[in-house]
Amino acid sequence: MERRPNRPIDYLKNSVNRVILIKVKRNRLFRGLLQGFDEHLNLYLEGTSQIFEYQDEDGNIREEHEDLGSIVVRGDNVIFVNLANEE
Amino acid sequence: MERRPNRPIDYLKNSVNRVILIKVKRNRLFRGLLQGFDEHLNLYLEGTSQIFEYQDEDGNIREEHEDLGSIVVRGDNVIFVNLANEE
Amino acid sequence: MERRPNRPIDYLKNSVNRVILIKVKRNRLFRGLLQGFDEHLNLYLEGTSQIFEYQDEDGNIREEHEDLGSIVVRGDNVIFVNLANEE
Amino acid sequence: MERRPNRPIDYLKNSVNRVILIKVKRNRLFRGLLQGFDEHLNLYLEGTSQIFEYQDEDGNIREEHEDLGSIVVRGDNVIFVNLANEE
Amino acid sequence: MERRPNRPIDYLKNSVNRVILIKVKRNRLFRGLLQGFDEHLNLYLEGTSQIFEYQDEDGNIREEHEDLGSIVVRGDNVIFVNLANEE
Amino acid sequence: MERRPNRPIDYLKNSVNRVILIKVKRNRLFRGLLQGFDEHLNLYLEGTSQIFEYQDEDGNIREEHEDLGSIVVRGDNVIFVNLANEE
Amino acid sequence: MERRPNRPIDYLKNSVNRVILIKVKRNRLFRGLLQGFDEHLNLYLEGTSQIFEYQDEDGNIREEHEDLGSIVVRGDNVIFVNLANEE
Repeated sequence: MERRPNRPIDYLKNSVNRVILIKVKRNRLFRGLLQGFDEHLNLYLEGTSQIFEYQDEDGNIREEHEDLGSIVVRGDNVIFVNLANEE
Repeated sequence: MERRPNRPIDYLKNSVNRVILIKVKRNRLFRGLLQGFDEHLNLYLEGTSQIFEYQDEDGNIREEHEDLGSIVVRGDNVIFVNLANEE
Repeated sequence: MERRPNRPIDYLKNSVNRVILIKVKRNRLFRGLLQGFDEHLNLYLEGTSQIFEYQDEDGNIREEHEDLGSIVVRGDNVIFVNLANEE
Repeated sequence: MERRPNRPIDYLKNSVNRVILIKVKRNRLFRGLLQGFDEHLNLYLEGTSQIFEYQDEDGNIREEHEDLGSIVVRGDNVIFVNLANEE
Repeated sequence: MERRPNRPIDYLKNSVNRVILIKVKRNRLFRGLLQGFDEHLNLYLEGTSQIFEYQDEDGNIREEHEDLGSIVVRGDNVIFVNLANEE
Repeated sequence: MERRPNRPIDYLKNSVNRVILIKVKRNRLFRGLLQGFDEHLNLYLEGTSQIFEYQDEDGNIREEHEDLGSIVVRGDNVIFVNLANEE
Repeated sequence: MERRPNRPIDYLKNSVNRVILIKVKRNRLFRGLLQGFDEHLNLYLEGTSQIFEYQDEDGNIREEHEDLGSIVVRGDNVIFVNLANEE
């Protein structure tokens, strides 16, 4: 029997103390410093911004930010987590 | 094996007896004093206001408040919890 | 290790035999005497009214009531429970 | 420790062999003789009518009935169960 | 302690080898010979027709049938099962 | 106690290595060779086509196919599985 | 008793370190190198592109790509995974 690959949740460990992006249902996007997570993909973030994307009158995609500070995101809202790039 | 980071739910402990914001599905927002929570993110709040955001005729975002007193929020409605800032 | 705060469900005990409000998905609101509950937030209420809110022709919010008597609400429909105020 | 109140599901026992109303998601309403239930609020009913409510041309609420006989309702569709009144 | 009534699922046993109707979310209706089921209300049917209801130009409700043969219905789609009438 | 009928999932065994149709939420339809399944109705298919049904300008129902090769379908998307006919 | 076929999840093992396509609810499509997965179909991908399909002014289907790098997809968003073809 070949070895089972790592679980996706294990890869979040390498992003602790780093900035990640979280794409959430209902067109929400959060950017923040990952400080905690669990197997449901509940996430604890510090220094979080909520990012709203919209089209301006010229059809360009623009971003607006709202500073939220520390948040706990309930995992069942998450579509995907974009991990910090390895340097 | 590196140490597993804290679970997001553990960070709620520091906000007990403090005012938090809860963003809930279907465009609801609650502000209240956190008194209890569990692993489903069920929350017990005292002195709660429900906050409705709307655009007025001039396009400005405005808030209206409804006082609710003590409420139990069922966790599966929660999108995120905005914790009290450390002083 | 600090003491875990009470679970939200425990606060419902103090409202047994008292009138509570239950906000439910799909714009329903119930007011009734709490007689039983469980950890899923299933609720048993007596003397229950279902309250419909609507705007009249002058733009005022109005309420209409329908008497339902004794009902069991399935917990997964609940958004929040508004507990009886302590006297 | 105070005694835990009865679970909502326990109150269904008193309605066995009696006519109850079941309000279900997607605007369905059933009326039937309760013969069985379980902890998921799955229900077994005999002599069941499905009731459709609609507004006629004069704006009055009217009911239409469809006889279904014996049905098993899957519990996750239930919003609330309206128990038989005690006589 | 009074005897717990039968579970709804137990009543399906009497309909094995008989024709039942299954009302499913998203306006689907199946009619078929019940051959197997489980506690999730997953169902195995033989000789199944899918029934579509629509209004014709004169406003009459009409049915169209599509023969499907043997199908496994995933239980979480089921609203209710209409059991075979006892003869 | 009468013998419990087979579970619906057991009937999938007879369709392994045979072509089945899978009707999925959001109007998707897959046709492929069943190679694996589990109790959640997760399915592994080989030689899979995704079938889109649409009405052409004359009102006829037409099908278009997209070849997908080998896919794993997550079970909670499944409405029903149409088993291979016994020969 | 005949041997139970392999579970769908087991077939993902052969695609580790290979490029797969993931079709997700709300019209999202990801293409990336599979590095980890679990029984919920949570997936860890590297070198991921998000693919948006749209119709241009001439009615042709076009694709646009957004590079995401490493992502964890929460399994409950997945409709199906299109495995790498065996060479």
